[in-house]
Amino acid sequence: MKLFEPLKINSMTLPNRVVVPAMVTRLSGEDGFVNGDITDRYVRFAKGGAGLIVLEAMAVHGSKSGPLLRISGDEFTPGLRELRQKMKDAGPGCVAPQIIHFLKISRSGWRQKVDDLSIDDIRAIVDAYAAAAVRCIDAGYDGVELHMAHAYTLSSFLSRMNKRRDDYGGSLDRRLRVPVEVVTAVRKAVGDFPVGVRFDGEECIKGGYTGDESKLIAWRLVQAGVDYVSISAGGKFEDAQPREGEPLYPYTGYSGDRCMPGKTYPPAANLYIAAGIRLFLREQGSSAPVIATGKINTPELAEKILNDGHADLIGMARPILCDPDWPRKVQAGHFDRVIRCCYANVCKAKDERFQTVSCFLWPKGEIQAPQSDDSVAPQWPEEGAGLKADGSKGRIDLKWNAAKDNEGVYGYDVWRALGEGDFERVDAVPAPVTGYHDTTAVAGFEYRYYVQGYDYAGNRTPASGILQARIS
Amino acid sequence: MKLFEPLKINSMTLPNRVVVPAMVTRLSGEDGFVNGDITDRYVRFAKGGAGLIVLEAMAVHGSKSGPLLRISGDEFTPGLRELRQKMKDAGPGCVAPQIIHFLKISRSGWRQKVDDLSIDDIRAIVDAYAAAAVRCIDAGYDGVELHMAHAYTLSSFLSRMNKRRDDYGGSLDRRLRVPVEVVTAVRKAVGDFPVGVRFDGEECIKGGYTGDESKLIAWRLVQAGVDYVSISAGGKFEDAQPREGEPLYPYTGYSGDRCMPGKTYPPAANLYIAAGIRLFLREQGSSAPVIATGKINTPELAEKILNDGHADLIGMARPILCDPDWPRKVQAGHFDRVIRCCYANVCKAKDERFQTVSCFLWPKGEIQAPQSDDSVAPQWPEEGAGLKADGSKGRIDLKWNAAKDNEGVYGYDVWRALGEGDFERVDAVPAPVTGYHDTTAVAGFEYRYYVQGYDYAGNRTPASGILQARIS
Repeated sequence: MKLFEPLKINSMTLPNRVVVPAMVTRLSGEDGFVNGDITDRYVRFAKGGAGLIVLEAMAVHGSKSGPLLRISGDEFTPGLRELRQKMKDAGPGCVAPQIIHFLKISRSGWRQKVDDLSIDDIRAIVDAYAAAAVRCIDAGYDGVELHMAHAYTLSSFLSRMNKRRDDYGGSLDRRLRVPVEVVTAVRKAVGDFPVGVRFDGEECIKGGYTGDESKLIAWRLVQAGVDYVSISAGGKFEDAQPREGEPLYPYTGYSGDRCMPGKTYPPAANLYIAAGIRLFLREQGSSAPVIATGKINTPELAEKILNDGHADLIGMARPILCDPDWPRKVQAGHFDRVIRCCYANVCKAKDERFQTVSCFLWPKGEIQAPQSDDSVAPQWPEEGAGLKADGSKGRIDLKWNAAKDNEGVYGYDVWRALGEGDFERVDAVPAPVTGYHDTTAVAGFEYRYYVQGYDYAGNRTPASGILQARIS
Repeated sequence: MKLFEPLKINSMTLPNRVVVPAMVTRLSGEDGFVNGDITDRYVRFAKGGAGLIVLEAMAVHGSKSGPLLRISGDEFTPGLRELRQKMKDAGPGCVAPQIIHFLKISRSGWRQKVDDLSIDDIRAIVDAYAAAAVRCIDAGYDGVELHMAHAYTLSSFLSRMNKRRDDYGGSLDRRLRVPVEVVTAVRKAVGDFPVGVRFDGEECIKGGYTGDESKLIAWRLVQAGVDYVSISAGGKFEDAQPREGEPLYPYTGYSGDRCMPGKTYPPAANLYIAAGIRLFLREQGSSAPVIATGKINTPELAEKILNDGHADLIGMARPILCDPDWPRKVQAGHFDRVIRCCYANVCKAKDERFQTVSCFLWPKGEIQAPQSDDSVAPQWPEEGAGLKADGSKGRIDLKWNAAKDNEGVYGYDVWRALGEGDFERVDAVPAPVTGYHDTTAVAGFEYRYYVQGYDYAGNRTPASGILQARIS
């Protein structure tokens, strides 16, 4: 599989094409130092075998912002070095911290904007990025990723909402100026150390930019010296939904939906954005690798994207949060043992509520993915699993009997076929739930369903009996 | 060209594949009767040669709503009949009124929602649609289009925001129930009279549906009896931007951008939605024609979409508002005489401000597109048109000398090539302006530009000299 071929990016060689993009965890303390929970989370990811793990955004500056890692001074280097060493001991993947600058925000609703920054403020931001990038080398990392996506400072400069009237806003070229200065300063400071960038391929807000501009942004940043581009979307303040007594939080509006497309989105919902950028880069003679993200969840889909030339690397945040062993299991030919993300976006909701980010499918209260080397598959108590359907309420309600397992049943996948079509895995429910409401079925179609139980290692029951159902 | 092949839809045969989708004009009076301005607008469209002209949404019920056509009683039939006759005299295209039901809204911010409707209210809506559809037959039209898109009643039933707890909301099947009842009642009332539907292929709001559900909506509505589906997007209340002292108006938020994608969007920005729906319908064995809309502006693009099987009909609202003769000119092989929409969306902005909808490129103050049979092309006063560029302000500023014409210069098209790439027409400016700011250029690229002046008939000057420019 192309997915498991290595890829050289400047001086680092990724062992495979699976990328864990930066994900907020809210596991760190307010002091910004690496702690045990953070270490556990990332060592687990490393063990899972992804080719590149991008550590959650860490601040290049000293502003307070709740539980967030920091890389704003040399005092943070030892902890970061230790984390890198532990990840190296656990797995073969390269690791790059994502470094971020963000503006101030208050509970009153006020937020600092790029228009408020003086030229000295801008110089300080550029310098802080360069200094933080050097600390990534000092701490033994393989590369650094510059955060220019979502609602943060550099993204806000790139945004079409940046109406500064000086050299740093207005036209696309001027909106690019601070980001280009950051790349230039970082490159000058780090030599041939791998430097990537993450930015929005579409802002997904009223008046925001789309692929027509982001392809030029990508090209310009590559010209300025970045080695790869990782394409995100949305996640902006402009359409965030205010909550009484809490600071405005990005990701809570439509652009947040587009940033982390949930159940209602088709697979690879944002792929066209990364594909358009990659095509443009190649047309201009650039071979910079492009990372595509957003609801890419099966090896077949990932492989097709690589073979179609729509991306060079596949970013999987929620699927690897759900099951850190995705890469290792798939490489061993066992996608059938992967615990599969159902895109319920409870992880996203927890972040929005300033809670520790965990997965909906994990056992209740856990802050890390469960681990098991068990090889005994769960079993149905009876043939067909007692699967029943009721189509009388304008939806199809499924019920089945609980599976049994030596270690414990972890959850159930629900599979559905429309008419004569192929079966698709439509959702998952965590045990001990043994039922599912299919609210997206429509009258007039015949549906077929089956369910499969899985344990903590991902061993699965046989398929339950296939049940035909329709809305009556 | 496939674009000019006829297409049979039930009992009507469109002479070609160009569709004028329903566009608000604000030309009617508050009384809802057809008047002279309305007649002029649509007779002009008919003369232009489009295969199907959908008349602006007219109300099936009696609610007041500013300048809006009505079809809520038999008293409106004579005026509508006369309009149809005048359009028949002017051109070969089929004509179908779009019929709409909308809920109440007040300046105070209150708006009626589908949750507020009683079962009797729902029955009255269904009956009103059926009665209005019959009036379309009586008035001599070729078909009727049911408005189920954007912020209006039937779209609000289809929406994932429809949380009614009875049979008419919640699950997809229940959200479909009122729309299906409308289609069923209309079909029963009109026999084999062509019935189309326009609905959103994506809601483009937080938590809204996407193609995964809209393909099922399309299929279900076709099963219920519609003859074609016309795919729009967005245009919702949920993200509309409130304006002091004015009722909330849809299209003013991000979903409004997506409904009428402007300058910052790539061509055919919403095509993937219609293409996905068409593919699904064909997989299910339905041959119902699909209309794609949204920034489709050149015959080459339209033809490619038809040949790729992404749509059966091409909707062009803003391009035909800009130049009603688009179909006739293109069919005669003269796209080079079309006045080309520049997607400035001044038409959209006028609608939002409750003003008569006109085109930014039309002569100031006009409420209809200019007309001319002149065949003398405008000329440059000197070779090269004196085209000059200045790249010192973080953008590229162009200036040129005014062209001269026997009847008057109407405007200028700006063409640009990036590096070694092909020239693309990037924008238009209305005369007497003779300059353009290219704010989307970035440093590091070589750009080439030329401009072309045009007169009211669309005759064009030769290309000005080609000028190379870059941001310094």
